[in-house]
Amino acid sequence: MATRPVRVALDLLGGDRAPDVVVEGALAALAEDPQLHLVVAGPSGLRPRWASVADRVTLLPTDEGVGMADAPVRAVRNRRTSVRLAVEAVRNGAADAVVSIGPTGAAVAAAVTELGKLPGYRRPVLAAVLPAVAHPVVLLDVGAHAGASDADLVRHGRLGSAFARTALGLDWPRVGLLSVGTEPGKGDSLRKKADRGLTGSGLHYVGLVEGYDIPLGGRADVVVTDGFTGNVVLKTLEGSLALAATNDAATNGAGPNGVCSNSSCPHGAARNFASSASGVLGGGSRRAATLLGVAGTVVIGHGAAGSADVADCVALAAAAVRDNYLLHLRAVLDHSAQASEIAPPPEADPDEQHRSAARQQNRPQARMTAAPAAT
Amino acid sequence: MATRPVRVALDLLGGDRAPDVVVEGALAALAEDPQLHLVVAGPSGLRPRWASVADRVTLLPTDEGVGMADAPVRAVRNRRTSVRLAVEAVRNGAADAVVSIGPTGAAVAAAVTELGKLPGYRRPVLAAVLPAVAHPVVLLDVGAHAGASDADLVRHGRLGSAFARTALGLDWPRVGLLSVGTEPGKGDSLRKKADRGLTGSGLHYVGLVEGYDIPLGGRADVVVTDGFTGNVVLKTLEGSLALAATNDAATNGAGPNGVCSNSSCPHGAARNFASSASGVLGGGSRRAATLLGVAGTVVIGHGAAGSADVADCVALAAAAVRDNYLLHLRAVLDHSAQASEIAPPPEADPDEQHRSAARQQNRPQARMTAAPAAT
Repeated sequence: MATRPVRVALDLLGGDRAPDVVVEGALAALAEDPQLHLVVAGPSGLRPRWASVADRVTLLPTDEGVGMADAPVRAVRNRRTSVRLAVEAVRNGAADAVVSIGPTGAAVAAAVTELGKLPGYRRPVLAAVLPAVAHPVVLLDVGAHAGASDADLVRHGRLGSAFARTALGLDWPRVGLLSVGTEPGKGDSLRKKADRGLTGSGLHYVGLVEGYDIPLGGRADVVVTDGFTGNVVLKTLEGSLALAATNDAATNGAGPNGVCSNSSCPHGAARNFASSASGVLGGGSRRAATLLGVAGTVVIGHGAAGSADVADCVALAAAAVRDNYLLHLRAVLDHSAQASEIAPPPEADPDEQHRSAARQQNRPQARMTAAPAAT
Repeated sequence: MATRPVRVALDLLGGDRAPDVVVEGALAALAEDPQLHLVVAGPSGLRPRWASVADRVTLLPTDEGVGMADAPVRAVRNRRTSVRLAVEAVRNGAADAVVSIGPTGAAVAAAVTELGKLPGYRRPVLAAVLPAVAHPVVLLDVGAHAGASDADLVRHGRLGSAFARTALGLDWPRVGLLSVGTEPGKGDSLRKKADRGLTGSGLHYVGLVEGYDIPLGGRADVVVTDGFTGNVVLKTLEGSLALAATNDAATNGAGPNGVCSNSSCPHGAARNFASSASGVLGGGSRRAATLLGVAGTVVIGHGAAGSADVADCVALAAAAVRDNYLLHLRAVLDHSAQASEIAPPPEADPDEQHRSAARQQNRPQARMTAAPAAT
């Protein structure tokens, strides 16, 4: 089936094993998608690596990366960092979307500076689509910012809901707030305030959810949390799947429950398990997160990404462009902003937990509420 | 091998499926351990259930439980709740340890009120021993309190280290602080302050760790976090193992990655997966957490515990009594408090990551420091 051409900008100097795995991932993505063109920002010394696909690769030469130990502002203060050049390619129209394998803080800073934020969204958010037992779950924020206010969490809910409509094709995604129990009032003061804000948001808010509800699904399509908790949860989830794989393997000196009886499981081996388990973490978009709230399509990969993960990030960005994801997202956000000011409340039952029922509902009008409409 | 008699008090009205699964768990624990005596707090109508073991069970009759929706103070304001009667049995010497299947808040409130706190520890902490790829990891706080200050996190580190010495038999447990990256400065302001506090604590502090490091192990024996994050992480870990089990099974209409293509995976089924996966969550102490910082041995089970989990909680409490766990814990804490005021700093390398090396070290003297010594 013919697909339309897409141009993706790629930061070659992001990630723990840059530039090698990023180049390998780029070549794999090009081999997979004949209509893909890449705008790569990185060392000109890598030019020979692109020889076989020279007509589909544009190089923006730079040797300046941003390290994990660098402050994120380095990506912004220095105009020639690879991540900034890649994002700039989107701003000036040379590319349709951008991919960076991190560091996350640097990529977020570059995206905000070059592309700007969507009106009313003061903080961009990283959203990951995670596999779950019942259905995929959107988790956000998985690490764009370590903190959040209750108003931020309501905005996360709006962005996550709009994202799930476009990315998962749901009419009326159920939004849950991550806490330590599902009973009203469970959690810290931030969660209690955000719970009230989400209740009056006009979203299909189903209330508090727990850690289980991310890998199990069933209760919510979108799980909202602050960037500290989301990042810890994402990494715990990934490591847990590695633990489960180890338990299954039950080899290499592992004792009952996969616990090594001595020092025979060195840390490096454990890390490799995490890497090999990433396949479980999700089909076509493994180890990739989408930055929401900026005026552009930005995919950020996991620092430990392998070449297959990089290729997946590029494919995710290309698919988002072909789906007109950003246009849809902005339309949903604009609609929500208007609807929450003028429409009567819907008859949604907040305790309703079955996806089938949720899907049978038409997209309802949002509630009339004193809460600010995406401002 | 002969073991010495132990008396464990058990709250029969805690947990989602009380009293049935609690009674079943109690009977299983009695069958497993001939030297076990139980002091059970619950309905006198259950007396016939104890007929076969009447000489090893003392009943404290009450019909008053604390529900999940009740405020935890109900456990304290009402002198006749089952959880309070069970804890009281420890205070007045009728039992050596107490087990409740929750609600956690009620059990914590009852323990603090009846048993009191250890000197210098203003907040009790729930510690779980989790299986990991490299070795078991102590995670705390898994939910005694939803919030924490930086000074609380340092105290969590002291309690966790002392607990790991006694519970895991480690001389010099490595303590890590859960954050969003391992580089210095990663995390929110709470983590930055706690990182400084732990660095000067005299503990074997190895710095920041990530979500991976809980199920993988290798980097730290004790992972310190606030009760909100710890509770979410624990439940995510449990659900993730259920997800992995589902992926393995690859049955029941599940599509790629175990994601159901429609509504064929109802929420109840997903919950059952979580329940069945609990066996992976850890050998002899599954779904059990130990309350640290109170002057007594208190084990709190998971609200969704099955009878086998309840039996494990009772066995864990009995083992703690036989190991003189509380005596050891207090001795380590007292020693740490004194050492941190008078001893020279040890030659520990904070970047050292290998357990074998850690074990070869003798217990070092703690650092001379301006930080308060467990006060």
